[in-house]
Amino acid sequence: MKAEHKELMKARRRNIRLTLAYDGTAYHGFQRQTPPVVVVQNILEEKLELVFGDTIELSASGRTDAGVHAHGQVVNFFTDGTIPIDRVCRALNSILPDDIVVTEAAEADRDFSALHSAKRKTYIYRIITGEVPCPFERNTAWYIRRRLDIDAMRRALSLLIGTHDYSAFRAAGGAPMSPVRTMDRADIEKEGRIITMTFRSDGFLYHMVRNIVGTVVDVGLGVKTPERFGEIIASLDRQQASATAPACGLYLENVEY
Amino acid sequence: MKAEHKELMKARRRNIRLTLAYDGTAYHGFQRQTPPVVVVQNILEEKLELVFGDTIELSASGRTDAGVHAHGQVVNFFTDGTIPIDRVCRALNSILPDDIVVTEAAEADRDFSALHSAKRKTYIYRIITGEVPCPFERNTAWYIRRRLDIDAMRRALSLLIGTHDYSAFRAAGGAPMSPVRTMDRADIEKEGRIITMTFRSDGFLYHMVRNIVGTVVDVGLGVKTPERFGEIIASLDRQQASATAPACGLYLENVEY
Repeated sequence: MKAEHKELMKARRRNIRLTLAYDGTAYHGFQRQTPPVVVVQNILEEKLELVFGDTIELSASGRTDAGVHAHGQVVNFFTDGTIPIDRVCRALNSILPDDIVVTEAAEADRDFSALHSAKRKTYIYRIITGEVPCPFERNTAWYIRRRLDIDAMRRALSLLIGTHDYSAFRAAGGAPMSPVRTMDRADIEKEGRIITMTFRSDGFLYHMVRNIVGTVVDVGLGVKTPERFGEIIASLDRQQASATAPACGLYLENVEY
Repeated sequence: MKAEHKELMKARRRNIRLTLAYDGTAYHGFQRQTPPVVVVQNILEEKLELVFGDTIELSASGRTDAGVHAHGQVVNFFTDGTIPIDRVCRALNSILPDDIVVTEAAEADRDFSALHSAKRKTYIYRIITGEVPCPFERNTAWYIRRRLDIDAMRRALSLLIGTHDYSAFRAAGGAPMSPVRTMDRADIEKEGRIITMTFRSDGFLYHMVRNIVGTVVDVGLGVKTPERFGEIIASLDRQQASATAPACGLYLENVEY
Protein backbone atom coordinates (compact mmCIF):
# COMPACT_ATOMS: atom_id res chain seq x y z
CA MET A 1 0.00 0.00 0.00
CA LYS A 2 2.67 2.50 1.03
CA ALA A 3 4.95 1.45 -1.85
CA GLU A 4 1.99 1.70 -4.23
CA HIS A 5 1.29 5.21 -3.00
CA LYS A 6 4.90 6.14 -3.53
CA GLU A 7 4.70 4.90 -7.13
CA LEU A 8 1.56 6.99 -7.61
CA MET A 9 3.44 10.10 -6.44
CA LYS A 10 6.39 9.30 -8.68
CA ALA A 11 4.05 8.98 -11.69
CA ARG A 12 3.49 12.72 -11.44
CA ARG A 13 5.25 14.85 -14.00
CA ARG A 14 7.38 17.19 -11.90
CA ASN A 15 9.80 16.79 -9.00
CA ILE A 16 10.16 20.22 -7.33
CA ARG A 17 12.99 21.14 -5.00
CA LEU A 18 12.59 24.05 -2.58
CA THR A 19 15.06 25.75 -0.24
CA LEU A 20 13.55 27.22 2.92
CA ALA A 21 14.51 29.62 5.67
CA TYR A 22 12.42 29.68 8.82
CA ASP A 23 12.38 31.09 12.31
CA GLY A 24 11.53 27.96 14.31
CA THR A 25 10.47 29.83 17.47
CA ALA A 26 6.72 29.33 16.97
CA TYR A 27 6.93 25.74 15.74
CA HIS A 28 7.10 22.31 17.31
CA GLY A 29 9.77 21.39 14.80
CA PHE A 30 9.72 20.64 11.09
CA GLN A 31 8.21 17.19 10.77
CA ARG A 32 4.58 16.31 10.13
CA GLN A 33 2.60 15.60 13.26
CA THR A 34 -1.06 15.29 14.08
CA PRO A 35 -2.59 18.76 14.49
CA PRO A 36 -3.05 20.85 16.62
CA VAL A 37 0.73 20.75 17.15
CA VAL A 38 2.05 23.39 14.75
CA VAL A 39 4.96 22.21 12.60
CA VAL A 40 6.56 23.76 9.52
CA GLN A 41 5.77 20.79 7.26
CA ASN A 42 1.99 20.92 7.76
CA ILE A 43 1.81 24.62 6.98
CA LEU A 44 4.07 24.30 3.97
CA GLU A 45 2.12 21.36 2.49
CA GLU A 46 -1.15 23.22 2.95
CA LYS A 47 0.19 26.25 1.01
CA LEU A 48 1.85 24.05 -1.64
CA GLU A 49 -1.55 22.45 -2.29
CA LEU A 50 -3.03 25.90 -2.93
CA VAL A 51 -0.25 26.84 -5.35
CA PHE A 52 0.09 23.49 -7.16
CA GLY A 53 -3.56 22.35 -7.01
CA ASP A 54 -2.45 18.84 -5.98
CA THR A 55 -2.28 16.85 -2.77
CA ILE A 56 1.33 17.32 -1.69
CA GLU A 57 3.54 15.08 0.40
CA LEU A 58 6.95 16.56 0.79
CA SER A 59 10.19 14.98 1.88
CA ALA A 60 12.79 17.06 3.77
CA SER A 61 16.57 16.69 4.17
CA GLY A 62 15.83 15.93 7.81
CA ARG A 63 13.74 17.15 10.66
CA THR A 64 14.59 20.07 12.88
CA ASP A 65 13.45 20.08 16.51
CA ALA A 66 11.11 22.50 18.24
CA GLY A 67 12.59 26.02 18.27
CA VAL A 68 15.43 25.16 15.86
CA HIS A 69 15.82 27.46 12.83
CA ALA A 70 16.87 27.02 9.20
CA HIS A 71 18.66 29.19 6.68
CA GLY A 72 18.77 26.41 4.09
CA GLN A 73 16.42 23.49 4.71
CA VAL A 74 15.73 21.54 1.47
CA VAL A 75 12.54 19.68 0.55
CA ASN A 76 11.17 18.00 -2.57
CA PHE A 77 7.78 16.76 -3.74
CA PHE A 78 6.10 15.36 -6.87
CA THR A 79 3.29 17.26 -8.53
CA ASP A 80 1.27 17.64 -11.72
CA GLY A 81 0.71 21.34 -10.95
CA THR A 82 1.47 23.66 -13.86
CA ILE A 83 2.73 26.89 -12.25
CA PRO A 84 5.99 28.01 -13.96
CA ILE A 85 9.01 27.43 -11.72
CA ASP A 86 10.06 31.10 -11.73
CA ARG A 87 6.75 32.09 -10.10
CA VAL A 88 6.84 29.54 -7.31
CA CYS A 89 8.84 31.55 -4.72
CA ARG A 90 6.68 34.66 -4.88
CA ALA A 91 3.41 32.71 -5.01
CA LEU A 92 4.34 30.74 -1.90
CA ASN A 93 5.87 33.65 0.02
CA SER A 94 2.73 35.72 -0.54
CA ILE A 95 0.63 33.15 1.38
CA LEU A 96 3.11 31.63 3.85
CA PRO A 97 3.38 33.11 7.36
CA ASP A 98 6.23 35.65 7.67
CA ASP A 99 8.42 33.26 9.67
CA ILE A 100 8.70 30.74 6.78
CA VAL A 101 10.29 31.88 3.51
CA VAL A 102 10.96 29.92 0.31
CA THR A 103 14.33 31.22 -0.90
CA GLU A 104 14.74 29.02 -4.01
CA ALA A 105 12.58 26.79 -6.20
CA ALA A 106 13.90 24.50 -8.94
CA GLU A 107 12.88 21.56 -11.12
CA ALA A 108 14.78 18.50 -9.90
CA ASP A 109 15.73 15.24 -11.58
CA ARG A 110 13.16 12.48 -11.12
CA ASP A 111 15.43 10.55 -8.77
CA PHE A 112 16.34 13.53 -6.56
CA SER A 113 15.33 13.05 -2.92
CA ALA A 114 15.92 15.84 -0.39
CA LEU A 115 16.35 13.13 2.24
CA HIS A 116 18.25 10.36 0.49
CA SER A 117 20.41 12.42 -1.91
CA ALA A 118 21.90 14.60 0.86
CA LYS A 119 25.69 14.30 0.92
CA ARG A 120 26.67 16.82 3.56
CA LYS A 121 24.97 19.21 5.98
CA THR A 122 26.14 22.36 7.72
CA TYR A 123 24.71 23.54 11.02
CA ILE A 124 25.60 26.74 12.83
CA TYR A 125 25.11 27.48 16.50
CA ARG A 126 24.94 31.07 17.78
CA ILE A 127 25.74 32.28 21.30
CA ILE A 128 25.36 35.86 22.54
CA THR A 129 27.52 36.99 25.45
CA GLY A 130 27.71 40.11 27.60
CA GLU A 131 26.59 41.62 30.89
CA VAL A 132 22.94 41.84 29.83
CA PRO A 133 20.87 39.89 27.30
CA CYS A 134 19.77 41.38 23.96
CA PRO A 135 15.99 41.57 23.43
CA PHE A 136 16.44 41.08 19.67
CA GLU A 137 18.36 37.81 20.09
CA ARG A 138 16.14 36.21 22.73
CA ASN A 139 14.90 33.49 20.34
CA THR A 140 17.84 33.36 17.94
CA ALA A 141 20.92 32.78 20.13
CA TRP A 142 21.84 31.20 23.48
CA TYR A 143 22.58 33.95 26.01
CA ILE A 144 25.61 33.26 28.25
CA ARG A 145 26.59 35.95 30.71
CA ARG A 146 29.96 34.56 31.80
CA ARG A 147 33.11 35.03 29.73
CA LEU A 148 33.97 32.17 27.38
CA ASP A 149 37.54 31.15 26.48
CA ILE A 150 37.29 31.03 22.67
CA ASP A 151 40.78 29.54 22.21
CA ALA A 152 40.01 26.63 24.53
CA MET A 153 36.71 26.05 22.72
CA ARG A 154 38.55 26.10 19.37
CA ARG A 155 41.02 23.47 20.59
CA ALA A 156 38.16 21.24 21.74
CA LEU A 157 36.26 21.65 18.46
CA SER A 158 39.33 20.70 16.42
CA LEU A 159 39.24 17.25 18.06
CA LEU A 160 35.89 16.57 16.38
CA ILE A 161 37.36 16.78 12.86
CA GLY A 162 37.74 13.46 11.03
CA THR A 163 35.87 10.18 11.09
CA HIS A 164 34.70 9.29 14.59
CA ASP A 165 32.06 7.39 16.49
CA TYR A 166 30.05 10.30 17.94
CA SER A 167 27.98 8.21 20.38
CA ALA A 168 29.02 10.47 23.28
CA PHE A 169 26.88 13.21 21.75
CA ARG A 170 23.95 11.09 20.62
CA ALA A 171 20.62 11.44 22.37
CA ALA A 172 18.16 8.59 22.73
CA GLY A 173 15.21 8.80 20.35
CA GLY A 174 16.71 9.54 16.94
CA ALA A 175 16.33 7.39 13.84
CA PRO A 176 18.63 4.35 14.01
CA MET A 177 21.81 5.09 12.06
CA SER A 178 25.49 4.36 12.42
CA PRO A 179 27.14 6.62 15.01
CA VAL A 180 30.24 6.85 12.80
CA ARG A 181 30.28 10.10 10.83
CA THR A 182 32.88 12.24 9.09
CA MET A 183 33.07 15.87 10.18
CA ASP A 184 35.23 18.18 8.07
CA ARG A 185 34.40 21.47 9.74
CA ALA A 186 34.02 22.35 13.44
CA ASP A 187 35.10 25.91 14.07
CA ILE A 188 34.29 29.00 16.07
CA GLU A 189 34.47 32.75 15.53
CA LYS A 190 33.53 35.75 17.63
CA GLU A 191 32.28 39.06 16.28
CA GLY A 192 31.22 41.62 18.86
CA ARG A 193 28.90 39.87 21.30
CA ILE A 194 28.10 37.00 18.92
CA ILE A 195 29.93 33.66 18.92
CA THR A 196 29.22 31.39 15.94
CA MET A 197 30.17 27.72 15.74
CA THR A 198 30.00 25.93 12.38
CA PHE A 199 29.72 22.17 11.93
CA ARG A 200 29.80 20.32 8.61
CA SER A 201 29.41 16.55 8.34
CA ASP A 202 28.03 13.78 6.14
CA GLY A 203 25.35 13.33 8.78
CA PHE A 204 24.38 14.30 12.30
CA LEU A 205 22.95 12.09 15.05
CA TYR A 206 19.90 13.10 17.08
CA HIS A 207 20.74 16.21 19.20
CA MET A 208 24.40 15.81 18.22
CA VAL A 209 25.18 19.49 17.58
CA ARG A 210 23.38 20.69 20.70
CA ASN A 211 25.14 18.05 22.83
CA ILE A 212 28.53 19.03 21.37
CA VAL A 213 27.81 22.74 21.98
CA GLY A 214 26.74 22.13 25.60
CA THR A 215 30.03 20.35 26.22
CA VAL A 216 32.18 22.87 24.33
CA VAL A 217 30.61 25.68 26.36
CA ASP A 218 31.73 23.87 29.54
CA VAL A 219 35.24 23.99 28.05
CA GLY A 220 34.80 27.73 27.40
CA LEU A 221 33.71 28.24 31.01
CA GLY A 222 36.75 26.33 32.31
CA VAL A 223 34.59 23.55 33.78
CA LYS A 224 36.23 21.06 31.41
CA THR A 225 39.58 21.14 29.60
CA PRO A 226 40.02 20.58 25.83
CA GLU A 227 41.86 17.36 26.76
CA ARG A 228 38.85 16.19 28.77
CA PHE A 229 36.70 16.98 25.71
CA GLY A 230 38.88 14.54 23.71
CA GLU A 231 38.37 11.87 26.37
CA ILE A 232 34.61 12.41 26.21
CA ILE A 233 34.60 11.82 22.44
CA ALA A 234 36.59 8.60 22.97
CA SER A 235 34.33 7.41 25.82
CA LEU A 236 31.36 6.92 23.43
CA ASP A 237 29.30 7.58 26.58
CA ARG A 238 26.54 10.21 26.54
CA GLN A 239 26.76 10.40 30.35
CA GLN A 240 30.24 11.93 30.09
CA ALA A 241 29.11 14.89 27.96
CA SER A 242 27.35 18.00 29.27
CA ALA A 243 23.72 19.07 29.06
CA THR A 244 22.10 19.71 25.68
CA ALA A 245 22.39 23.36 24.54
CA PRO A 246 19.09 25.24 23.97
CA ALA A 247 17.33 24.84 20.61
CA CYS A 248 17.12 28.59 19.94
CA GLY A 249 20.82 28.90 18.95
CA LEU A 250 20.75 26.15 16.30
CA TYR A 251 20.33 26.69 12.53
CA LEU A 252 20.33 24.18 9.67
CA GLU A 253 22.58 26.29 7.46
CA ASN A 254 22.62 24.31 4.23
CA VAL A 255 22.48 20.87 2.67
CA GLU A 256 24.81 19.74 -0.10
CA TYR A 257 23.79 17.21 -2.76
CA MET B 1 -2.95 68.41 42.97
CA LYS B 2 -0.67 67.22 40.18
CA ALA B 3 2.09 69.63 41.22
CA GLU B 4 1.67 68.51 44.84
CA HIS B 5 2.03 64.90 43.74
CA LYS B 6 5.17 65.77 41.81
CA GLU B 7 6.66 67.37 44.95
CA LEU B 8 5.82 64.22 46.88
CA MET B 9 7.75 62.16 44.34
CA LYS B 10 10.67 64.56 44.44
CA ALA B 11 10.81 64.29 48.23
CA ARG B 12 12.00 60.73 47.78
CA ARG B 13 15.67 60.08 48.37
CA ARG B 14 16.86 58.66 45.06
CA ASN B 15 16.51 59.62 41.39
CA ILE B 16 17.31 56.51 39.32
CA ARG B 17 18.15 56.58 35.64
CA LEU B 18 17.75 53.46 33.51
CA THR B 19 18.73 52.71 29.93
CA LEU B 20 16.50 50.21 28.14
CA ALA B 21 16.53 48.08 25.02
CA TYR B 22 13.29 46.56 23.83
CA ASP B 23 11.79 44.73 20.91
CA GLY B 24 8.61 46.75 20.38
CA THR B 25 6.85 44.12 18.25
CA ALA B 26 4.47 42.93 20.97
CA TYR B 27 3.73 46.38 22.42
CA HIS B 28 1.33 49.20 21.66
CA GLY B 29 4.20 51.63 22.15
CA PHE B 30 6.06 52.88 25.19
CA GLN B 31 3.70 55.28 26.89
CA ARG B 32 1.31 54.50 29.74
CA GLN B 33 -2.19 53.70 28.63
CA THR B 34 -5.23 52.16 30.25
CA PRO B 35 -4.89 48.37 30.31
CA PRO B 36 -5.53 45.96 28.60
CA VAL B 37 -3.44 47.70 25.92
CA VAL B 38 0.08 46.39 26.53
CA VAL B 39 2.75 49.09 26.63
CA VAL B 40 6.36 48.98 27.81
CA GLN B 41 5.86 51.61 30.53
CA ASN B 42 3.12 49.70 32.40
CA ILE B 43 5.16 46.50 32.50
CA LEU B 44 8.32 48.30 33.54
CA GLU B 45 6.61 50.24 36.36
CA GLU B 46 5.04 47.05 37.68
CA LYS B 47 8.45 45.33 37.86
CA LEU B 48 10.14 48.45 39.30
CA GLU B 49 7.60 48.43 42.12
CA LEU B 50 8.57 44.83 42.94
CA VAL B 51 12.29 45.66 42.98
CA PHE B 52 12.09 49.05 44.75
CA GLY B 53 9.08 48.37 47.00
CA ASP B 54 7.59 51.77 46.15
CA THR B 55 4.87 53.06 43.87
CA ILE B 56 6.79 54.10 40.76
CA GLU B 57 5.96 56.73 38.16
CA LEU B 58 8.63 56.91 35.55
CA SER B 59 9.37 59.57 33.01
CA ALA B 60 10.87 58.63 29.62
CA SER B 61 12.93 60.58 27.08
CA GLY B 62 9.92 60.32 24.81
CA ARG B 63 7.38 57.83 23.67
CA THR B 64 7.92 55.28 20.94
CA ASP B 65 4.96 54.16 18.80
CA ALA B 66 3.49 50.69 18.48
CA GLY B 67 6.02 48.27 16.97
CA VAL B 68 8.95 50.72 17.29
CA HIS B 69 12.09 49.39 19.02
CA ALA B 70 14.76 50.84 21.28
CA HIS B 71 18.45 50.16 21.80
CA GLY B 72 18.84 53.08 24.21
CA GLN B 73 15.60 54.47 25.62
CA VAL B 74 16.21 56.40 28.88
CA VAL B 75 13.83 56.74 31.84
CA ASN B 76 14.07 58.12 35.37
CA PHE B 77 12.00 57.85 38.56
CA PHE B 78 12.15 58.84 42.22
CA THR B 79 12.19 56.17 44.91
CA ASP B 80 12.96 55.45 48.54
CA GLY B 81 13.81 51.83 47.65
CA THR B 82 17.12 50.62 49.07
CA ILE B 83 18.43 48.11 46.54
CA PRO B 84 22.10 48.87 45.70
CA ILE B 85 22.47 50.38 42.23
CA ASP B 86 24.81 47.65 41.00
CA ARG B 87 22.12 45.01 41.57
CA VAL B 88 19.33 46.83 39.75
CA CYS B 89 19.97 45.54 36.20
CA ARG B 90 20.07 41.88 37.12
CA ALA B 91 17.13 42.13 39.53
CA LEU B 92 14.96 43.75 36.86
CA ASN B 93 16.11 41.58 33.97
CA SER B 94 15.33 38.44 35.96
CA ILE B 95 11.64 39.43 36.18
CA LEU B 96 11.08 41.46 33.00
CA PRO B 97 9.80 39.71 29.86
CA ASP B 98 12.64 38.71 27.48
CA ASP B 99 11.79 41.47 24.99
CA ILE B 100 12.57 44.27 27.48
CA VAL B 101 16.12 44.54 28.89
CA VAL B 102 17.60 47.09 31.30
CA THR B 103 21.11 47.68 29.98
CA GLU B 104 22.28 50.30 32.51
CA ALA B 105 21.17 51.65 35.89
CA ALA B 106 22.67 54.71 37.59
CA GLU B 107 21.98 57.18 40.41
CA ALA B 108 21.10 60.52 38.81
CA ASP B 109 21.26 64.11 40.08
CA ARG B 110 18.07 65.27 41.73
CA ASP B 111 17.24 67.59 38.85
CA PHE B 112 17.85 65.04 36.09
CA SER B 113 14.77 64.38 33.96
CA ALA B 114 14.88 61.80 31.16
CA LEU B 115 12.33 63.92 29.30
CA HIS B 116 13.41 67.51 29.97
CA SER B 117 17.19 67.09 30.20
CA ALA B 118 17.48 65.38 26.77
CA LYS B 119 19.80 67.35 24.47
CA ARG B 120 19.97 65.12 21.40
CA LYS B 121 18.49 61.88 20.16
CA THR B 122 19.62 59.36 17.58
CA TYR B 123 17.22 57.13 15.67
CA ILE B 124 18.16 54.45 13.22
CA TYR B 125 15.95 52.96 10.53
CA ARG B 126 16.70 49.52 9.06
CA ILE B 127 15.63 48.24 5.63
CA ILE B 128 16.24 44.74 4.30
CA THR B 129 16.41 44.24 0.54
CA GLY B 130 16.66 41.22 -1.76
CA GLU B 131 14.61 38.86 -3.91
CA VAL B 132 12.97 37.19 -0.91
CA PRO B 133 12.27 38.38 2.65
CA CYS B 134 14.23 37.13 5.66
CA PRO B 135 12.16 35.34 8.33
CA PHE B 136 14.52 36.59 11.06
CA GLU B 137 14.04 40.26 10.11
CA ARG B 138 10.27 40.22 9.68
CA ASN B 139 9.67 42.43 12.74
CA THR B 140 12.98 44.28 12.85
CA ALA B 141 13.41 45.82 9.36
CA TRP B 142 11.28 47.07 6.48
CA TYR B 143 11.47 44.57 3.61
CA ILE B 144 11.78 46.17 0.15
CA ARG B 145 12.16 43.86 -2.82
CA ARG B 146 13.07 46.43 -5.48
CA ARG B 147 16.59 47.77 -5.85
CA LEU B 148 17.27 51.07 -4.07
CA ASP B 149 19.70 53.72 -5.37
CA ILE B 150 21.78 54.34 -2.24
CA ASP B 151 23.69 57.30 -3.74
CA ALA B 152 20.46 59.12 -4.61
CA MET B 153 19.13 58.44 -1.09
CA ARG B 154 22.38 59.77 0.39
CA ARG B 155 22.09 63.00 -1.62
CA ALA B 156 18.49 63.46 -0.43
CA LEU B 157 19.43 62.78 3.21
CA SER B 158 22.24 65.35 3.09
CA LEU B 159 19.63 68.07 2.45
CA LEU B 160 18.15 67.43 5.90
CA ILE B 161 21.32 68.49 7.72
CA GLY B 162 21.20 71.86 9.46
CA THR B 163 18.44 73.90 11.08
CA HIS B 164 15.15 73.55 9.22
CA ASP B 165 11.42 73.72 9.65
CA TYR B 166 10.54 70.01 9.26
CA SER B 167 6.76 70.51 8.95
CA ALA B 168 6.70 68.52 5.69
CA PHE B 169 7.47 65.40 7.73
CA ARG B 170 5.28 66.11 10.74
CA ALA B 171 2.20 64.02 11.33
CA ALA B 172 -0.94 65.31 13.01
CA GLY B 173 -1.32 64.18 16.62
CA GLY B 174 2.07 64.80 18.24
CA ALA B 175 2.72 67.02 21.22
CA PRO B 176 2.75 70.70 20.23
CA MET B 177 6.34 71.84 19.70
CA SER B 178 8.22 74.09 17.30
CA PRO B 179 8.74 72.41 13.91
CA VAL B 180 12.21 73.99 13.72
CA ARG B 181 14.91 71.47 14.69
CA THR B 182 18.62 71.06 14.10
CA MET B 183 19.73 67.79 12.56
CA ASP B 184 23.47 67.10 12.50
CA ARG B 185 23.40 63.55 11.15
CA ALA B 186 21.31 61.99 8.37
CA ASP B 187 23.26 59.26 6.63
CA ILE B 188 22.91 55.84 5.05
CA GLU B 189 25.04 52.75 4.73
CA LYS B 190 24.53 49.34 3.18
CA GLU B 191 26.02 46.09 4.44
CA GLY B 192 24.93 42.94 2.64
CA ARG B 193 21.14 43.02 2.44
CA ILE B 194 20.75 45.57 5.26
CA ILE B 195 20.45 49.33 4.71
CA THR B 196 20.75 51.48 7.83
CA MET B 197 19.83 55.16 8.01
CA THR B 198 20.95 57.20 11.03
CA PHE B 199 19.32 60.47 12.17
CA ARG B 200 20.57 62.67 15.02
CA SER B 201 18.76 65.85 16.07
CA ASP B 202 17.93 68.01 19.09
CA GLY B 203 14.38 66.73 18.74
CA PHE B 204 12.04 64.87 16.43
CA LEU B 205 8.44 65.70 15.52
CA TYR B 206 5.68 63.12 15.62
CA HIS B 207 6.35 60.42 12.95
CA MET B 208 9.16 62.58 11.56
CA VAL B 209 11.72 59.81 10.98
CA ARG B 210 9.20 57.43 9.44
CA ASN B 211 7.87 60.18 7.14
CA ILE B 212 11.42 61.09 6.08
CA VAL B 213 12.26 57.43 5.42
CA GLY B 214 9.09 56.88 3.36
CA THR B 215 10.06 59.83 1.17
CA VAL B 216 13.75 58.91 0.92
CA VAL B 217 12.77 55.39 -0.18
CA ASP B 218 10.77 56.95 -3.01
CA VAL B 219 14.01 58.69 -4.01
CA GLY B 220 15.81 55.31 -3.85
CA LEU B 221 13.14 53.77 -6.09
CA GLY B 222 13.50 56.60 -8.63
CA VAL B 223 9.91 57.81 -8.00
CA LYS B 224 11.30 61.14 -6.75
CA THR B 225 14.63 62.90 -7.39
CA PRO B 226 16.94 64.20 -4.63
CA GLU B 227 16.12 67.72 -5.92
CA ARG B 228 12.42 67.04 -5.47
CA PHE B 229 13.21 65.89 -1.92
CA GLY B 230 14.75 69.32 -1.29
CA GLU B 231 11.59 71.00 -2.62
CA ILE B 232 9.48 68.85 -0.29
CA ILE B 233 11.49 69.99 2.75
CA ALA B 234 11.01 73.62 1.66
CA SER B 235 7.27 73.17 1.02
CA LEU B 236 6.54 72.65 4.75
CA ASP B 237 3.59 70.62 3.44
CA ARG B 238 2.99 67.07 4.71
CA GLN B 239 0.91 66.36 1.58
CA GLN B 240 4.06 66.65 -0.58
CA ALA B 241 5.95 63.92 1.27
CA SER B 242 5.41 60.16 0.80
CA ALA B 243 3.63 57.62 2.99
CA THR B 244 4.91 56.88 6.51
CA ALA B 245 7.43 54.01 6.62
CA PRO B 246 6.48 50.97 8.74
CA ALA B 247 7.19 51.08 12.49
CA CYS B 248 9.15 47.80 12.52
CA GLY B 249 12.30 49.36 10.99
CA LEU B 250 12.62 52.17 13.55
CA TYR B 251 14.87 52.14 16.66
CA LEU B 252 15.47 54.80 19.29
CA GLU B 253 19.24 54.34 19.28
CA ASN B 254 20.32 56.63 22.10
CA VAL B 255 19.61 59.83 24.00
CA GLU B 256 22.31 62.35 24.91
CA TYR B 257 22.10 64.54 28.01
